[in-house]
Amino acid sequence: MYSVVMAGGSGTRFWPASRQARPKQLLALTGKRSLLQQTVDRMAPLTPADRVLVVTGAHHAAPVIEQLPQVPAAQIIAEPMARNTAAAAGLAAAWVAKNDPSAVCLVLPADHLITDETLFLDTLRRAAEIASSGDCLVTLGLNPRYPATGFGYIEAGDMISQDPPPVFEVKAFHEKPDLATAQSYLESGRHMWNSGMFAWRAEVLLAEIKRFIPELAGGLDELTPDLGTDRQAEALARVYPKLPKISVDNGVLEKSDSIRVIEADFGWSDVGSWDAMAELWPSDRADNAAQAGKLLAIDASGNLVSAGHRLTALLGVDNLVAVVTDDVLLILPRERCQDVRQVIDTLKANGLDEYL
Amino acid sequence: MYSVVMAGGSGTRFWPASRQARPKQLLALTGKRSLLQQTVDRMAPLTPADRVLVVTGAHHAAPVIEQLPQVPAAQIIAEPMARNTAAAAGLAAAWVAKNDPSAVCLVLPADHLITDETLFLDTLRRAAEIASSGDCLVTLGLNPRYPATGFGYIEAGDMISQDPPPVFEVKAFHEKPDLATAQSYLESGRHMWNSGMFAWRAEVLLAEIKRFIPELAGGLDELTPDLGTDRQAEALARVYPKLPKISVDNGVLEKSDSIRVIEADFGWSDVGSWDAMAELWPSDRADNAAQAGKLLAIDASGNLVSAGHRLTALLGVDNLVAVVTDDVLLILPRERCQDVRQVIDTLKANGLDEYL
Repeated sequence: MYSVVMAGGSGTRFWPASRQARPKQLLALTGKRSLLQQTVDRMAPLTPADRVLVVTGAHHAAPVIEQLPQVPAAQIIAEPMARNTAAAAGLAAAWVAKNDPSAVCLVLPADHLITDETLFLDTLRRAAEIASSGDCLVTLGLNPRYPATGFGYIEAGDMISQDPPPVFEVKAFHEKPDLATAQSYLESGRHMWNSGMFAWRAEVLLAEIKRFIPELAGGLDELTPDLGTDRQAEALARVYPKLPKISVDNGVLEKSDSIRVIEADFGWSDVGSWDAMAELWPSDRADNAAQAGKLLAIDASGNLVSAGHRLTALLGVDNLVAVVTDDVLLILPRERCQDVRQVIDTLKANGLDEYL
Repeated sequence: MYSVVMAGGSGTRFWPASRQARPKQLLALTGKRSLLQQTVDRMAPLTPADRVLVVTGAHHAAPVIEQLPQVPAAQIIAEPMARNTAAAAGLAAAWVAKNDPSAVCLVLPADHLITDETLFLDTLRRAAEIASSGDCLVTLGLNPRYPATGFGYIEAGDMISQDPPPVFEVKAFHEKPDLATAQSYLESGRHMWNSGMFAWRAEVLLAEIKRFIPELAGGLDELTPDLGTDRQAEALARVYPKLPKISVDNGVLEKSDSIRVIEADFGWSDVGSWDAMAELWPSDRADNAAQAGKLLAIDASGNLVSAGHRLTALLGVDNLVAVVTDDVLLILPRERCQDVRQVIDTLKANGLDEYL
């Protein structure tokens, strides 16, 4: 069994903490360990460090290697360019299959937070069992807590096992819905958030890729002889540009008829924007939260502050986000956290690339 | 003629830029020169550096000497403790009188900004003429621009000279008024803001102090033999604790019948709080102003930012003040700038003295 950590994200919504050279998964947004380090730490009871594979972008390989000294450097695979998750998951499956085609891959995003680690591990163990014993692709579906419009949904079909965590067939995948649709999903009791966490045997994923994305399968076949050798980087540089850009959800899962969803309820956050930190940082009685440093609030509530080890004094302001880095100060209302992208676009438009 | 620069202020309203060890007059709030340096620079056409006397607190003497290398160190007089402006002005007058009792002292706060320097110098020249030729204390009254409740007012009496700048007798001094009273002062056309700028012959001030604050006069008499000698610091340490705490306005000017007020209109700001920087810092078309560094504002207006050389990104926020220093982040609405004192009080109450 292998953990496959997908560490290709850029995380622009955590600007200015996240930067092109320092994406979200490399940040210590909570505590002292980065999201990537926490992801690998969390898997240790299931997969020791020599059974961890990290797929990341070439320009992030160096900091990833630095943050994960316990993982053999050869198992940190640098994609020369982003080709979406089907290519990344397929590459990892090809790497694993070269050693052991029947090994289970537990595929995990590098930039998520989990509250209940015991239940998380139990759920993954169950997912691995199912993947190991049947020719199916197992997804982890999260019980929706609110009518989220920012996630895709998995619609459960017939129940296959009711032992907790329960397992279902999958009736359909749904793209990010509008609010009314999200509300109906929430009320249906049959829809779960698509977590981006999966379990499958390497050979099963590769077979499904061959069936549904033959162009990708051809590329992976071309790569396989060089994987794990000193020709790997050269082969990736040659083959990767030709690979199709498609997600594993769109390219494989939505088309396959061998999908299972396992119901997950282990306190999960995709840490999608600064606003998500409200629940994760230490806060005062007026819900002012600071990542670190002292906080002094007078007539102030609901603010989120990341200002390093500075003392933050807030006087008469509410529901703001403020972030101080070495070269940037950002201030915005919490309800506009999703619009940080606009700042990045404006920086680009003004040629201020040094701040990206 | 001497310039007497009163540099004893603490300027808590510019926290966290101003600190106990670095009060407002030592800060470069506009441009690269501190308010103190600008004050001394501005006087150069009237009084060369060897005719400048600075009265400051003992714990600020070192940075004052450092900021004013052109002023003889012996003319930077360190008060061992604050004893308000009557003592400071009296001490300077005693120092000057020891050399030349008839010399005119131009008394100036160290922490004000002047826009029209030519008119400022012309006004002071006129004030010096009047002080030099009559046994009177000359105050500079500023034409009120709005019904300020934060300043004392001087009520003009009969006009003595209508040559610009016009000179009047003084009918009364008024303490900081409430808003309705301030409005009536503004409409009267006879009330001016009390600027804290004065001109008088050293011997004239000392005579008035002897008449109205004999206890202070006694202390100054005790000090005089040691002023300008290597016994000065010791004498100040012995005598200063005994001096009465009273302002030159309350202690002398309000009681004297030899006061003149000269009407001043040279673009003055006491830079009383962060809010005052709106007119002084570079700003964009939406009235967002930054002391330094790039400013990127989206749906944001009327904000004031001091964040060193950082790029500041503002998204969807209005009329805020944000200040970043090495160890503090402060955010508040502009209309609460006067309440920064509350933050300082809270820091004290919580034993966070290192931030004062």
